[in-house]
Amino acid sequence: MPEPIGTAAVLRSAYSAGELTTVEIADRVLAAIGDPTGNPIWISTVPAAQLRARAVELHERRDELAVLPLYGVPFAVKDNIDLAGLPTTAGCPEFAYRPDRTATVVTRLLDAGAMLVGKTNLDQFATGLTGTRSPYGRCESVFGGGLIAGGSSSGSAVVVAAGLVSFALGTDTAGSGRVPAACNGIVGMKPTRGLLSVAGVVPACRSLDCVSIFTHTPDDAATVFRVAHGVDPDDPWARPLPADRSAARPPATLRLGLPRAEDLDFFGDLGQRDRFAAGQDRVAVLVGETEPVGLRPLFEAGDLLYQGPWVAERLADLDDFLRSRPDAVLPVTRKVLESGRRYDGAQVFRARHRLQELRAWTDRLWQRIDVLVVPTVGTTFTIEEIDEDPIGRNTMLGRYTQFANLLDLAAVTVPNGFTEAGRPASLTLVGPAFSDTTLIRLAAALAAEPSPSGPTVSGPTAAEPTVSDPTVSKASDASDDDRVLLAVVGRHLTGESRNPELIDRGAVLAGIGLTAPLYRLYRLPSDDGVGLPSLVRVGTSDGAAIEIELWRLPVNAIGGLLAGVPAPLSLGWLRLHDGREVLGFLGEAYAADDEVEDITAAGGWRAYRQAARTG
Amino acid sequence: MPEPIGTAAVLRSAYSAGELTTVEIADRVLAAIGDPTGNPIWISTVPAAQLRARAVELHERRDELAVLPLYGVPFAVKDNIDLAGLPTTAGCPEFAYRPDRTATVVTRLLDAGAMLVGKTNLDQFATGLTGTRSPYGRCESVFGGGLIAGGSSSGSAVVVAAGLVSFALGTDTAGSGRVPAACNGIVGMKPTRGLLSVAGVVPACRSLDCVSIFTHTPDDAATVFRVAHGVDPDDPWARPLPADRSAARPPATLRLGLPRAEDLDFFGDLGQRDRFAAGQDRVAVLVGETEPVGLRPLFEAGDLLYQGPWVAERLADLDDFLRSRPDAVLPVTRKVLESGRRYDGAQVFRARHRLQELRAWTDRLWQRIDVLVVPTVGTTFTIEEIDEDPIGRNTMLGRYTQFANLLDLAAVTVPNGFTEAGRPASLTLVGPAFSDTTLIRLAAALAAEPSPSGPTVSGPTAAEPTVSDPTVSKASDASDDDRVLLAVVGRHLTGESRNPELIDRGAVLAGIGLTAPLYRLYRLPSDDGVGLPSLVRVGTSDGAAIEIELWRLPVNAIGGLLAGVPAPLSLGWLRLHDGREVLGFLGEAYAADDEVEDITAAGGWRAYRQAARTG
Repeated sequence: MPEPIGTAAVLRSAYSAGELTTVEIADRVLAAIGDPTGNPIWISTVPAAQLRARAVELHERRDELAVLPLYGVPFAVKDNIDLAGLPTTAGCPEFAYRPDRTATVVTRLLDAGAMLVGKTNLDQFATGLTGTRSPYGRCESVFGGGLIAGGSSSGSAVVVAAGLVSFALGTDTAGSGRVPAACNGIVGMKPTRGLLSVAGVVPACRSLDCVSIFTHTPDDAATVFRVAHGVDPDDPWARPLPADRSAARPPATLRLGLPRAEDLDFFGDLGQRDRFAAGQDRVAVLVGETEPVGLRPLFEAGDLLYQGPWVAERLADLDDFLRSRPDAVLPVTRKVLESGRRYDGAQVFRARHRLQELRAWTDRLWQRIDVLVVPTVGTTFTIEEIDEDPIGRNTMLGRYTQFANLLDLAAVTVPNGFTEAGRPASLTLVGPAFSDTTLIRLAAALAAEPSPSGPTVSGPTAAEPTVSDPTVSKASDASDDDRVLLAVVGRHLTGESRNPELIDRGAVLAGIGLTAPLYRLYRLPSDDGVGLPSLVRVGTSDGAAIEIELWRLPVNAIGGLLAGVPAPLSLGWLRLHDGREVLGFLGEAYAADDEVEDITAAGGWRAYRQAARTG
Repeated sequence: MPEPIGTAAVLRSAYSAGELTTVEIADRVLAAIGDPTGNPIWISTVPAAQLRARAVELHERRDELAVLPLYGVPFAVKDNIDLAGLPTTAGCPEFAYRPDRTATVVTRLLDAGAMLVGKTNLDQFATGLTGTRSPYGRCESVFGGGLIAGGSSSGSAVVVAAGLVSFALGTDTAGSGRVPAACNGIVGMKPTRGLLSVAGVVPACRSLDCVSIFTHTPDDAATVFRVAHGVDPDDPWARPLPADRSAARPPATLRLGLPRAEDLDFFGDLGQRDRFAAGQDRVAVLVGETEPVGLRPLFEAGDLLYQGPWVAERLADLDDFLRSRPDAVLPVTRKVLESGRRYDGAQVFRARHRLQELRAWTDRLWQRIDVLVVPTVGTTFTIEEIDEDPIGRNTMLGRYTQFANLLDLAAVTVPNGFTEAGRPASLTLVGPAFSDTTLIRLAAALAAEPSPSGPTVSGPTAAEPTVSDPTVSKASDASDDDRVLLAVVGRHLTGESRNPELIDRGAVLAGIGLTAPLYRLYRLPSDDGVGLPSLVRVGTSDGAAIEIELWRLPVNAIGGLLAGVPAPLSLGWLRLHDGREVLGFLGEAYAADDEVEDITAAGGWRAYRQAARTG
């Protein structure tokens, strides 16, 4: 096996340091492309000359590295996603066509500087979770031993796991973006339906299909997700990521649902049972609280997919092909698809009505918890074992994944070690629609395995007297001797333009710290073009901790300070990360409308300015 | 015909003035209940003794009038809505059952003081738009001449139009809450799907069914809507009205879509064509701008309902009954329902996929316009004319209504005069999901036909110097001589508990006035039980003008004042009604959550306190 290509983050750092060029990476990719895994992972690859030309082009544009988040990062896409210039087969040679246009989601990645290597093998028509249902050959897990690669995005998972590319796109209707991640020990992100465009993707079950992301690390998944998502006018299923959900919630603020033991079925695989028990404990220490959760309604919803009328949705697009070219379809795939003919219209609506009840149940679940942890698969199978019962064992593989799209959930799958028998274990973090970034952040925390105690925050000691202290809070008798602590977040910070207004009033810096994770930071327009940072408290679910400076100044100076700042800024009470409440600059919520830049993700004004200068 | 009962607003005013009692109204309702319209409007009525007992109970609770928004208001419900104690027939005697529980939406109205009179006739299983498909008899419009009452909520529209009750509930899947309003010259509101609970309502097409509201005035519809809506845990289709959509947008801020002439079909009825042309002009003068809009995609979506697979959704609930009791169903209704058997599962999904494309088209439409005006019906029919072609003419009646629920729209139908032939004309304002209150407000403006100039408001003169004045706004060199204007809205007002904190700092009252109409006033809980008023700026669409006092005080006193108030209060910039910006007390938006009382409607803290003392 060749040397692994590395993550997008590592490549970026090496490019940035001048230690590596895109041409060198392209050559390494090309040297390894001849099937080094012994697996039928590729259905087609970009011609070598074309990949080299792309690498040369990127090398010539290397001064754009800072604005191209995926600069020089090689990737693959599942072969049910269109790329102009290569055929799209969907795992069925007779179905293949040559698309004129590249799928929107691929174009977004290319526009961000990524280098496309090729198109990967899959279960035919993305129907299946085993990776064994392809006329192009059956993929084995990178861990060998005859273990399935999982499907339907089998090739995409293997090319990432084997280090041939940094990331790959799959699709996920029943679990095709998660099961192969589990079988190959990598990260699989199944975003909320509608966030990644499906324009130019062969439909499996249109109302449920998602494009998914395979990476080695949650951080890489976050980068690819950030680039790949966005409303596409060509995709009728597209949905915007609501602004108030775009930032990740800190793990420590999350309520985690733990499955009740009686609802978990590992199909006799005690190794997987033990690994999951250990894995959920690892997640539990990262979050704020845990709660036991029953899974039966999720399973009932999941069963609608292959054991219910949603299989008729697969026929909606494929029935004409299936009737005209029955022999072009694999027997097992045909059997699955044809089972959709059993359902009449009323049955579809009845199932839809039941699903609505299950969705309402799930909506209530998200009132109690923020994230649910489940096994990705209850057990793993060898290719031989799948052959013994191709449909029954496929169903077992989908137990913990197939409800997600029906119930409009997001999911991130992460490796969870190995069983004593040497089989890869995996767990999946599941959340409501639009919880994507929160799930990735929790996955990143899990990957980092931090100590159970929370992060420490520097700042004044808790004994520091503040205006919350009764001795100064009754301020109607304030004199020049009374001093208060004031939190500043933006233009009054050290080195910023309004900092002299503090100094001139006799203020002294008392420390730096963080707010409680209850705020969002916006950049309002300002005449000088720098922008006016505005801190708005938003509540526990959407907030983040923002960097502040604490200044001590005479209480009598507050009025003049306030009179000098423009609307919509105000002076009120800020809650700090250590629980204290101090005076500080706030912004009125009304001004943070859709047109205003939300810079919460930067963590503070200083970090934002730094990034902007670099960028 | 007896004297009309009057609107909820008129009744309330008469009750409030002591000019009327609930017992008198109940007696008037009972005196008129014996079918004075000559129409089979009722299927069942509440026993006279029970209605009188309810009236007596309400009379004894007359001191609660202020907190019961529908105190003593008589109403009716369509007989596909459950009321414990009376059978639910859905227009089919053989289908009838006696519910144990009253539908949630009815309970909400009763809890608000309304008096239920009875249950009204309808097209069987709410299937139809004519009002002629009922074994309980065929309703004629209140305008007579053999004109249909429209359906399926025929009886509910007639009891309101005839003045027998103040309002009535209907249901609306294809237009059943709008077509009968058009045929009887009243207001029909079809709220956004999911806002009014359908728990306890016989399903017609579950994924599309809405409870609708018939009234004489848009104001009454607004009152009933406010009481009736709310998330019901027993209704899996329930959706909350997003907080940022609950307030109506002013008509002058709206962009109105006007249908392209070539898309309008009045089926040869030139009178209706002329009325609609005049009606859309009346709406156009109320809004900010207009834009021509093509309607073809809306029509294509609408055709999916009866000419497409959605008719199979009606079978999802009724097929068992239809198969076991075919003779219990009217021939025309049976024919419609049985047409649903033609569709297989894949066809349903294919239609759903096409609908998604049409929804995406509609979503883009709402980027360009806020409200669309359409005719409610292209023409009207007599009962005889319907009999000549019961299905074809029913389809014509649905042209402008049947797309609304499939495309997730809200709609308010209002009278639009009469054609020269004496037929009632009507138009419908259509908006995206959750535009309900904006549509009602526009309907109210249309009903009021106000003068173009706005209301005048008293306030301090614009010449008053403030800190916006450059001579004091650069406050970094503030001294004790610098004085600023400070707006106070709550506990600092004259006579309130914190007013001494102003006086003690040498503040003097400089005037009273109003904020710009950009704010909402909340009453946060306080330890002393009085409550803490909190003023939050919300933007132009949801805001109101709130009463303030302006105090002039030394700028150096501001800090002490601020240190004395608790979070989430802050000091920032308030915009006044005359456009000036002054310092003032604000509240952070995060604290005004759902559990906090919104007292904006009172107009100010003083008025709110006064009302609370009286009430």
